[in-house]
Amino acid sequence: MDEFSFINAIKPKAYNQPTLIKGIGDDAAVFRSTSDIVTTVDTFVEDIHFSLDTMEPFHIGYRVLAANISDLAAMGAEPAFYLVSMCIPKKWSQKALEEIYQGMHELASIYQMDLIGGDTVSSDRLMISITAMGYVPKERARYRSHAKPGDIIFATGTLGDSRAGLEILLHQQECKDKDYYIRRHRLPEPKAAFALGLREIERVALNDISDGISNEANEIAEASGVELIIIEEKVPVSQTFYQFSEEQQYEWKLSGGEDFELLGTVPEKEWSRVQEIAHQANTPIKQIGYVRKTEEPRVLIQSKEEIKQLTKSGYTHLK
Amino acid sequence: MDEFSFINAIKPKAYNQPTLIKGIGDDAAVFRSTSDIVTTVDTFVEDIHFSLDTMEPFHIGYRVLAANISDLAAMGAEPAFYLVSMCIPKKWSQKALEEIYQGMHELASIYQMDLIGGDTVSSDRLMISITAMGYVPKERARYRSHAKPGDIIFATGTLGDSRAGLEILLHQQECKDKDYYIRRHRLPEPKAAFALGLREIERVALNDISDGISNEANEIAEASGVELIIIEEKVPVSQTFYQFSEEQQYEWKLSGGEDFELLGTVPEKEWSRVQEIAHQANTPIKQIGYVRKTEEPRVLIQSKEEIKQLTKSGYTHLK
Repeated sequence: MDEFSFINAIKPKAYNQPTLIKGIGDDAAVFRSTSDIVTTVDTFVEDIHFSLDTMEPFHIGYRVLAANISDLAAMGAEPAFYLVSMCIPKKWSQKALEEIYQGMHELASIYQMDLIGGDTVSSDRLMISITAMGYVPKERARYRSHAKPGDIIFATGTLGDSRAGLEILLHQQECKDKDYYIRRHRLPEPKAAFALGLREIERVALNDISDGISNEANEIAEASGVELIIIEEKVPVSQTFYQFSEEQQYEWKLSGGEDFELLGTVPEKEWSRVQEIAHQANTPIKQIGYVRKTEEPRVLIQSKEEIKQLTKSGYTHLK
Repeated sequence: MDEFSFINAIKPKAYNQPTLIKGIGDDAAVFRSTSDIVTTVDTFVEDIHFSLDTMEPFHIGYRVLAANISDLAAMGAEPAFYLVSMCIPKKWSQKALEEIYQGMHELASIYQMDLIGGDTVSSDRLMISITAMGYVPKERARYRSHAKPGDIIFATGTLGDSRAGLEILLHQQECKDKDYYIRRHRLPEPKAAFALGLREIERVALNDISDGISNEANEIAEASGVELIIIEEKVPVSQTFYQFSEEQQYEWKLSGGEDFELLGTVPEKEWSRVQEIAHQANTPIKQIGYVRKTEEPRVLIQSKEEIKQLTKSGYTHLK
């Protein structure tokens, strides 16, 4: 592979962000901001986080950037820039590599994000690490520690779909809405537009659902020192999700991960406004529980029959 | 390895940067700046960029961050933050990993840099990717495109030492100042303090010497559309550098790389002030040539006998 022609192929022809001063081509990039800057990094390794058996190169690029944008959304930040570090096995063709970048670019262009740097080295196994940056107005970063007793707990979209899509791909399983679930796995849509719409709301706790709500809800409970009660029947799932076994449904919707939806809490008086904002952003949203005062931070899951404690890993036991 | 205890071991106990709002512990970090932000990423892979035969884990961490700080210095930026993405082979002990972070921390603490994020995943081969961020006052970023005909060309420190250190380590060679050369290879000192001191100078072109001056000088020539004349005898080398063969000396000082010194150009009238600034920063500095107007951007190297063109890869031919 000719490094020069590869860099030329992936280097942006033009930049979108008005705050960018210097893009790719010097020792580092330069930008200028009056907003607060939010930054995060996510690293994906072949055969650990993704496999070429279930993903095309385009999907891999798209999905790594989606994970980053989802982190920015969970902070209430507007995506602005990304830097890509890649380890590439020698056997990979330049075409396949360009497809990875095209996948990123497809998603980046929705948010006018600019690629402003990177590093490409050879290795045995494909590895992609993206550092993303975004902007948030002062005092509007959304922390996990912002939940308070009396808050509504909400989730966007539907949960467990990405995990269902992976299962369908792995077992070449036939089922209803097969393409839908596969798409949810390969091309997840981070909820950045909805998160940006929330800016008028003074207090929101947000966490993105990358590992499953059992994990994310516990992170909010710990950071805020509160108890989260989740009503199991209210956890949003797709219309045809019932076709999977009960065990699968339960595990996937609570611990499936990589749906890149948002879990949050807001004061009850803001709930109707949050629903309007979600509607404007074309983002389904649902109340799934409420926040209570507690001595011991934890997450409870309440079903018709019983109430149980939900641990980070999705394990439940009677409280 | 217990992920929780590992993260606790490497997570900063306190932060130094007054502009930091949120460090590690949420979906992303947040900071606030009135200066321009400079950002860069560098990726190092085991057995490609470093080897455990010649480096301890401490040196590896130190050196990856040094490469990043050197990029920030080459932009005139003050180092502020870094995010670390690592792929770790399962066989690595937690102790060895903590030593990598200690190496980074040793260098970071000189600049009060804060570790504000990261991602750690397992893989077959050790990979470390660092994204670093720094601050530069408006209109003071130092680009490769800033060189102009009539400028002085300067280099800091001595060149070729890192390459000599590597050779000594690889061949377990005995020589004068052995420990010095090994130290220059394992624990290079990026010239950020000197670069910051240059802020009063209106125009400086800067590039860090990571691949050797034959490469970096050509980058300045191309970006600025000028001709750089380098006087071979003036290229700074260590006092005992003469002990290596003539071929080695020539190759290492021009293309050795990873010295993390700075190559720059300034107007002649600023040269005495630049020397004072270097002296204050305890950074040796030397004029090594001058910049000329040209039709065709290029680098020439002049020795007692002849003048030759110097290509990016260090190859020379009669002009």
